[in-house]
Amino acid sequence: MSSGKALRVAVAGLGTVGAGVVDLLARNRDLIAARAGRPIEVVAVAARSKNKDRGVDLSGMAWEEGALALAKRNDYDVLVEVVGGSEGQTVEAVEFALKAGRPVVTANKAMLALHGARLGQLAHDNGVALAFEAAVAGGIPIIKALREGLAGNQFQRVFGILNGTCNFILTKMRQEKREFVDVLAEAQRLGYAEADPTFDVDGIDAAHKLSILASVAFGSPTNFDAVHVEGIRHISALDISYATELGYRIKLLGIAGLTPNGLEQRVHPCMVPLDTPIAHVEGVFNAVVAEGDAVGTSFLQGRGAGAGPTASAVVSDLIDLARGHNVPAFAVPPAAMKALPAAPMAKHRGAYYVRLMVVDRPGVIADVAAALRDEKVSMEAMIQRGRDPGEVVPVVITTHETEEAAMVRALDRITALEAVTEPPRIIRIIERL
Amino acid sequence: MSSGKALRVAVAGLGTVGAGVVDLLARNRDLIAARAGRPIEVVAVAARSKNKDRGVDLSGMAWEEGALALAKRNDYDVLVEVVGGSEGQTVEAVEFALKAGRPVVTANKAMLALHGARLGQLAHDNGVALAFEAAVAGGIPIIKALREGLAGNQFQRVFGILNGTCNFILTKMRQEKREFVDVLAEAQRLGYAEADPTFDVDGIDAAHKLSILASVAFGSPTNFDAVHVEGIRHISALDISYATELGYRIKLLGIAGLTPNGLEQRVHPCMVPLDTPIAHVEGVFNAVVAEGDAVGTSFLQGRGAGAGPTASAVVSDLIDLARGHNVPAFAVPPAAMKALPAAPMAKHRGAYYVRLMVVDRPGVIADVAAALRDEKVSMEAMIQRGRDPGEVVPVVITTHETEEAAMVRALDRITALEAVTEPPRIIRIIERL
Repeated sequence: MSSGKALRVAVAGLGTVGAGVVDLLARNRDLIAARAGRPIEVVAVAARSKNKDRGVDLSGMAWEEGALALAKRNDYDVLVEVVGGSEGQTVEAVEFALKAGRPVVTANKAMLALHGARLGQLAHDNGVALAFEAAVAGGIPIIKALREGLAGNQFQRVFGILNGTCNFILTKMRQEKREFVDVLAEAQRLGYAEADPTFDVDGIDAAHKLSILASVAFGSPTNFDAVHVEGIRHISALDISYATELGYRIKLLGIAGLTPNGLEQRVHPCMVPLDTPIAHVEGVFNAVVAEGDAVGTSFLQGRGAGAGPTASAVVSDLIDLARGHNVPAFAVPPAAMKALPAAPMAKHRGAYYVRLMVVDRPGVIADVAAALRDEKVSMEAMIQRGRDPGEVVPVVITTHETEEAAMVRALDRITALEAVTEPPRIIRIIERL
Repeated sequence: MSSGKALRVAVAGLGTVGAGVVDLLARNRDLIAARAGRPIEVVAVAARSKNKDRGVDLSGMAWEEGALALAKRNDYDVLVEVVGGSEGQTVEAVEFALKAGRPVVTANKAMLALHGARLGQLAHDNGVALAFEAAVAGGIPIIKALREGLAGNQFQRVFGILNGTCNFILTKMRQEKREFVDVLAEAQRLGYAEADPTFDVDGIDAAHKLSILASVAFGSPTNFDAVHVEGIRHISALDISYATELGYRIKLLGIAGLTPNGLEQRVHPCMVPLDTPIAHVEGVFNAVVAEGDAVGTSFLQGRGAGAGPTASAVVSDLIDLARGHNVPAFAVPPAAMKALPAAPMAKHRGAYYVRLMVVDRPGVIADVAAALRDEKVSMEAMIQRGRDPGEVVPVVITTHETEEAAMVRALDRITALEAVTEPPRIIRIIERL
């Protein structure tokens, strides 16, 4: 058990999350001290504007303008980094603190996805913790679950809904039968999506988080470049309605798993069977499924972002540090990590949903079926609703499990058919969970 | 980080769980050593029959017949207690190990529910850990989530499906429209229920687990006697079908929460709204919902029992110990625990489902409605299907939120009505989750 001496915290960044951390530590001060074995006190903060009202009491805390200046102070025990950004002063501040033998708690998924292995090594070399529960699905203690609570397991697959903005948009699109651009605009008005929504809707944010989860679960250094990333811009209300008809929900999933070809990391929209828990995760909620050889399937759901859930994650890391915990950043020490080969997406095996727009005339379906047959892709079902001879109509096909490369070849053939008027939309169907 | 010296484990009990622990430690030996920072080795075991084939390799391990003899050995670092039983030698063995300064990992929920506070004090006094992830919902790292991962939160309520046998029976009853006794017999044949099913179907096992969760979440010493316990024997296929009609599932829940009257702990069947995740937890799965002031709602689902999930939980506790962790057994040190008053069930406030069997004749519903009105219980809905004048028919009523005591008084009046042919069946409706 730790001594009664306070754990002194320096908080870099006073946005929603940083202010949330200061607030939570103040609000639950006694409870947190009882659980941590000693008080946890914010002694210094860094943010650009000193006089902005953030709704929290900063009196008695030292002030710095920049994260690096904060990191260089000598009067703190832990650096909390909630500025964000994968390059520049934020990263320098984290490096400085680690080199100075001070543990770091961070919510910075981009930094970890791109520099996680190096920063984990730095933490190890200096004998301090690098903690980042807040970087992935703040309201779900998933890093702790993988790194500690399920640590006896060899994981086969870890996957989940890792971006609340995308899940909010997909949920609204389905519930209100609206199109992507329309719902995105609403999400932006509500503050659920950024003015530049690229990181969220193009899957990059989810990919950052996935590469962190994959590293923790599989002991392979973070390898963001190996993540296959697709976003949700191409999802249409039509596809969502077909998904419902077929017994699926469309979810943007991040999936990491061991395959015969290596470690697979992919972020893309998925058709998820309605009888699985993850199909029912709606709105801004996140969820993660861990599949382990002993535990079977463990499913965790909670809020992914926002001041409260993220602060909850940061403070839990601080309580761990106050208790004297020091777990390797990525579950095993750097020397025990092994870079697994990246499984090429072309070798991915799975089932597919394909939606074509075709001119409704005799022989078209036969041509499509022949293209699939020639590439040895086996059809599971075909739906052509609403005959409209001579007009363009949707045709939906689902396939049995096949190799991505074969699917791509078949789609090339299909796209080349004269009666096919636009590129096919494909959505991968996730294997039974 | 810990040294490379092996953590020496003594395993008391070689039933399904004990053999599962030995197997998992052997099977994932290298992975576990990498995560733990050092090897974890079983050096001694205790079980009655030495020559029984348990499918695991016990060579090189010392043998004792009893848990206490095992605890008294001097060649181990951690005692794993998976014998079970709330009294006698098992408890003595745990006490002996703790007093000898050796941490204990246990799956024994009955022992913890009845003696948790005393054993937590003993662990604290001797400066060692008492770990019990396996005691509640083995496949869900819920103790770690409450004690560490969500430790920054003031919890308002913690509840869940804590008994897989009951959930299996209720799921089968609904899916196959069968009655309790019939499905129980099948569960016994399948090995999902004991020959004497009392602990499971009467809610005692769930109550043991709930009292542990409540203590960890609310910092109040385990108080099993304060748990209001009802089982599922009185649930009929008829009620399950009404639940579906009303938009609910019937689940046996354990619920612990802070109320104006103190700490509420109750285990009973609940009507759970279909649009909540816990309604969709089927079969032998368990699930727990934690409601915290910062995190909001966090939902965790996994297998509740069986060799794999339980061994996963035991081994995660062992990895924690190998890493040098020592968290207070019930999240805060004994001195920081506060015995919260037990909220009396009579003061519970909630909505109710009531099913009556009445003689179908004019005026009966008016009499029932008058009884409710006289006790100020407000009806939300009433269903009387299938008129059958002069015969006995079911009548279902749901109420708005009311106090349990008022409901009980109203039910006494209703039971006394001449046209009411048997005692009303009531099932509490859980508040929106």
